[in-house]
Amino acid sequence: MQKYRVGVLGATGAVGQKFVELLDGHPWFEVVALAASERSAGKKYIDAVNWIGATPIPEKIADQTVVLANPEEVDADFVFSGVDASVALEMEMAFAQAGMPVISNTRNYRMEPTVPLLVPEVNPEHLALIDRQAYSDHGGFIVTNPNCSTVGLVLALLPLQKAFGLEAVHVVTMQALSGAGYPGVPSLDILSNVVPHIGGEEAKMETEPLKLFGTLTEQGIQFADFKISASCNRVSVLDGHTESVSVKLKTAADLAAIKAVFRAFEDPIAHLGLPSSPTPLIKLFEDERFPQPRRHASLGNGMTVSVGRVRADALFDVKFTLLVHNTIRGAAGGAILNAELLVSKGYLKHRI
Amino acid sequence: MQKYRVGVLGATGAVGQKFVELLDGHPWFEVVALAASERSAGKKYIDAVNWIGATPIPEKIADQTVVLANPEEVDADFVFSGVDASVALEMEMAFAQAGMPVISNTRNYRMEPTVPLLVPEVNPEHLALIDRQAYSDHGGFIVTNPNCSTVGLVLALLPLQKAFGLEAVHVVTMQALSGAGYPGVPSLDILSNVVPHIGGEEAKMETEPLKLFGTLTEQGIQFADFKISASCNRVSVLDGHTESVSVKLKTAADLAAIKAVFRAFEDPIAHLGLPSSPTPLIKLFEDERFPQPRRHASLGNGMTVSVGRVRADALFDVKFTLLVHNTIRGAAGGAILNAELLVSKGYLKHRI
Amino acid sequence: MQKYRVGVLGATGAVGQKFVELLDGHPWFEVVALAASERSAGKKYIDAVNWIGATPIPEKIADQTVVLANPEEVDADFVFSGVDASVALEMEMAFAQAGMPVISNTRNYRMEPTVPLLVPEVNPEHLALIDRQAYSDHGGFIVTNPNCSTVGLVLALLPLQKAFGLEAVHVVTMQALSGAGYPGVPSLDILSNVVPHIGGEEAKMETEPLKLFGTLTEQGIQFADFKISASCNRVSVLDGHTESVSVKLKTAADLAAIKAVFRAFEDPIAHLGLPSSPTPLIKLFEDERFPQPRRHASLGNGMTVSVGRVRADALFDVKFTLLVHNTIRGAAGGAILNAELLVSKGYLKHRI
Amino acid sequence: MQKYRVGVLGATGAVGQKFVELLDGHPWFEVVALAASERSAGKKYIDAVNWIGATPIPEKIADQTVVLANPEEVDADFVFSGVDASVALEMEMAFAQAGMPVISNTRNYRMEPTVPLLVPEVNPEHLALIDRQAYSDHGGFIVTNPNCSTVGLVLALLPLQKAFGLEAVHVVTMQALSGAGYPGVPSLDILSNVVPHIGGEEAKMETEPLKLFGTLTEQGIQFADFKISASCNRVSVLDGHTESVSVKLKTAADLAAIKAVFRAFEDPIAHLGLPSSPTPLIKLFEDERFPQPRRHASLGNGMTVSVGRVRADALFDVKFTLLVHNTIRGAAGGAILNAELLVSKGYLKHRI
Repeated sequence: MQKYRVGVLGATGAVGQKFVELLDGHPWFEVVALAASERSAGKKYIDAVNWIGATPIPEKIADQTVVLANPEEVDADFVFSGVDASVALEMEMAFAQAGMPVISNTRNYRMEPTVPLLVPEVNPEHLALIDRQAYSDHGGFIVTNPNCSTVGLVLALLPLQKAFGLEAVHVVTMQALSGAGYPGVPSLDILSNVVPHIGGEEAKMETEPLKLFGTLTEQGIQFADFKISASCNRVSVLDGHTESVSVKLKTAADLAAIKAVFRAFEDPIAHLGLPSSPTPLIKLFEDERFPQPRRHASLGNGMTVSVGRVRADALFDVKFTLLVHNTIRGAAGGAILNAELLVSKGYLKHRI
Repeated sequence: MQKYRVGVLGATGAVGQKFVELLDGHPWFEVVALAASERSAGKKYIDAVNWIGATPIPEKIADQTVVLANPEEVDADFVFSGVDASVALEMEMAFAQAGMPVISNTRNYRMEPTVPLLVPEVNPEHLALIDRQAYSDHGGFIVTNPNCSTVGLVLALLPLQKAFGLEAVHVVTMQALSGAGYPGVPSLDILSNVVPHIGGEEAKMETEPLKLFGTLTEQGIQFADFKISASCNRVSVLDGHTESVSVKLKTAADLAAIKAVFRAFEDPIAHLGLPSSPTPLIKLFEDERFPQPRRHASLGNGMTVSVGRVRADALFDVKFTLLVHNTIRGAAGGAILNAELLVSKGYLKHRI
Repeated sequence: MQKYRVGVLGATGAVGQKFVELLDGHPWFEVVALAASERSAGKKYIDAVNWIGATPIPEKIADQTVVLANPEEVDADFVFSGVDASVALEMEMAFAQAGMPVISNTRNYRMEPTVPLLVPEVNPEHLALIDRQAYSDHGGFIVTNPNCSTVGLVLALLPLQKAFGLEAVHVVTMQALSGAGYPGVPSLDILSNVVPHIGGEEAKMETEPLKLFGTLTEQGIQFADFKISASCNRVSVLDGHTESVSVKLKTAADLAAIKAVFRAFEDPIAHLGLPSSPTPLIKLFEDERFPQPRRHASLGNGMTVSVGRVRADALFDVKFTLLVHNTIRGAAGGAILNAELLVSKGYLKHRI
Repeated sequence: MQKYRVGVLGATGAVGQKFVELLDGHPWFEVVALAASERSAGKKYIDAVNWIGATPIPEKIADQTVVLANPEEVDADFVFSGVDASVALEMEMAFAQAGMPVISNTRNYRMEPTVPLLVPEVNPEHLALIDRQAYSDHGGFIVTNPNCSTVGLVLALLPLQKAFGLEAVHVVTMQALSGAGYPGVPSLDILSNVVPHIGGEEAKMETEPLKLFGTLTEQGIQFADFKISASCNRVSVLDGHTESVSVKLKTAADLAAIKAVFRAFEDPIAHLGLPSSPTPLIKLFEDERFPQPRRHASLGNGMTVSVGRVRADALFDVKFTLLVHNTIRGAAGGAILNAELLVSKGYLKHRI
């Protein structure tokens, strides 16, 4: 198979670095364009980037010259976008209008009616929206993945939603520092501390799942109608968002039935054989001390969502703890899986 | 005023050390007996204790000889008990039966029908239970304070309960390491990590508030009838439990009314002038980044409960974040305030 | 005694905030001018500052209006300077030339031949340099305190220097996050990590002690002639620099003699009764686990230097661990003690 | 190649777990016996162990039954020993006398004249000592690896020792929490803290390198004659010991020559092709912020030693920072490399 030639927008930022790291050795995709702002363009990647990862910069990448992030400079089959939300609105649209598919991790177009907000295991049928994007005639389009905390939540809810339907969801997050990018949270703000606020996060968690669990109709996505209450906290953890979740089901069920559903759950897109699909999709822990971010965030190469402490709830039907790797499944890895689904469904083409 | 001569049971443990630290310079109480197990008895306190506090051992205390924790060895007007739950059942009863008031921080007798589970600002009238204790004829009795997470919760709920009544409470905690005592949580378990389970904690949080907000009747305390869902997590914080709380009120109220109630709230026992009563009782933050444990746990010498991020909740009437100093208000300081209320109400006597 | 009316240059920065915090309730000094850049000038202090301290902004200070940091706007008897080194060169000189004493915590003038680099217990006689400053005729002058790591080192060396003389000093630091200011070190750089480099720090530690232990002569300070090797590391600690020190003495001495010198050491300026002088000046620990930054940095209100693990060294005469509170003794508190010495020696005048 | 059948003594402890983790998928060795104390013997490994690693227990291992750690119960070609020093003295000798090679990570026999204290790249010729062990006739012998801090030090010193000889070494360590085993350091002792003492560590660091760099003679190992001063600190880091090192060379050299030696250095046993030999053996950083434990401890699968900040020293010839993964190169991984060298040199036999 000929590899797709991919670009990374915002390649020197925290998310861009994660794209570079995760795409190293990818069987389908090869990074051929590292795009960033004028400050970095023209430099070798190794000189332009403040590499924050624990593994070294991939050798093939280190000496590539960074190009300016505009459609004329980026020669690729499609691009991943990890640019800052402040510049994404114009930049991503410019690439789409220039005929380039944009697989974005940024928040700007998530709620746009014709843009799929995609988690492959949850709503692959939403990809049909792509044909309704104005610029899709020229081959360009935008697909987004949700906020890092949302991804973990909807994947953990998926078995329950399928089996019983959802009536109400209450979630309190304990989110990792890497979710704030770099330099992100000052150490003086988080050492031996909790910050009980993350700007804009709660609103995203209370709305994005409704689009993700929504129904594709002629008029667009009809949002799901359950209610969500989200409270978001930052804790002193490197990677991995932990979430305490309580759920009221549409069809009431007892704890045994709920556990059985979690146990029996299988990845609905396993048959596609996407390279980044994890095994298992949901790791269910019986040990009540688990899941824990430092120990389990990297399960399934960071693409598995962990669930534990499934137990009865005095106010709702069930409560549990979930864990999601925020920079892999919740960002770059999720976007890569989106691209893999797009390949599988025939939405991505080789340009040469 | 002649100071009360007090003993500390479990004086070398984490809670006992906090009693010693907080009672240093107390205007009403003076530590005259440091009681511990056979391993420590007979040694100087400074030699028996692995002092974990940031401030030095009080000078008067350092050279006192530790005595065995039985009623014959402890010559005091009353005792504070910070002993481990595993030995508290027999030991505290032995002291009470010997005619000694026991102000306990241990969990064993909290749910005993004739034992007040006391937070002075919440249910001072429950002290009347004391007269129903079998051994109170000889002057002995037991009074307990609740679990460290419970205290913060009931104090933050108090204004709402008084103004609107409570229908349902959902709470997710992020608890400090000092709550687990010493040596407590291994560093390898919590560095860059969250532990989503604290043994027995959720059950305590789901039941203790119902006794605390209960009504004193001829037949004992009639428990309050609202429902509580608690999920407890350990985070990498030294001192201060942070809790994300959602509340459904008995009488619905809008956010403005709820905030007004918080703002107008006054300490119901301020008129008693107890030495450990904080000002304010509840600190209300408007800055959405606050409260934070490292910055605010010590407000009011650790006796103030902080509340912030009061906002509407999609599922309940209101949600907010609270913060309580777990080893002060939530343990030793709470017990000392209990003792001060007992003095104020005439339950404690000088023996000499 | 009429209080001195003091200004704080850089009042909204990390060091400025510490000046404000430490001067609250000071018996000799009262903050009457909070000076900062144009961004803050004209605002109330509480609105201009991102207060990072654990204690609240002092009430009297919160509502003061911040003024522009130039001599015309600052009406005070003298100023403390905690401004960034990038602007200090011109600003501090402007104040001095305008006739205002400047007690500076910034590095710029430390090595200036006529500027005292002062630690009151080490080299109070260096104050005589003030009269050699060009602008001292009008009452203006500059006095500086050393780098935060240097202060701890010279105070711990002082007993040895007096008793035996110094031949060579080897020091490796483990420095706290607060030493980098705010926002300072990103949490992603230091959680579960050590950063083995602090820009410019080693050069300061290798030169400043030589001026501090230098001799006042007609021609200026004749620097001490021992040699120093410094290696500086950043660790995940909030407050308190820990230093592993090895010392070769000029006059060889055995361990018992060295320990005796530490034990017998007395604060050489205790007789002056300066308000910020700590007791003891040097706290000597016998427990080999101590000193530790979280437990002991605040001894003597953060002005005491702790020394422990005094033991033989295979290469030098002795090695030990020292601990200094970097933002108190090592910065704002050290500057305040300098001002107190200046008052005591008659260098500071009331202007009204 | 037929795999060697290996046993792990102390298989449920922290070091034992690391042996199990690192031996998973090893090309030469297969774990066939998990040996532990009576408390664990007879249980499945997964039930006996409190697995602390971030990766799951290898599947083949999880269900193996733990056997009692005595020679009769352990059927293997040789054993790795990660048992506690308190029981190692008798146990390891029992295995050796029973004819079983013991590759030990424990400290007990390191200084025994006939026992090789081995780092394969440093002193492979010391293996000749094995023939002088009393019990080697029956095939049994003991080989040890040094303390975790020592390994990093001797490997970083190796290029300098070969090129210039060593006169004096001064080292200050900042050691990771995993070095203390599990439960190890209480979180209350290390959060926002440094502990300036690690029991017995400094003595090991000051003596073990002298045996490692010693000369094999008829009379045994003649220890090297340079001097070492070590100061050991515990810091809040999960994995990776960082060390600030100053070195006085036997033959003086300037910084350029020293750097050239580091750059030109090649692994002296690379030609043996041992599976755990890392590339590079020593990673030299030019970026003055590096090496850092969280980012670089795992280079070369944890077997590479990192060196950075090579610079002139005011007192010695050169100073630098080194980093070593304490539980891999410094413990289990180092022992596995020792076993690989023993295979390569013909010291290990298949028993069946």
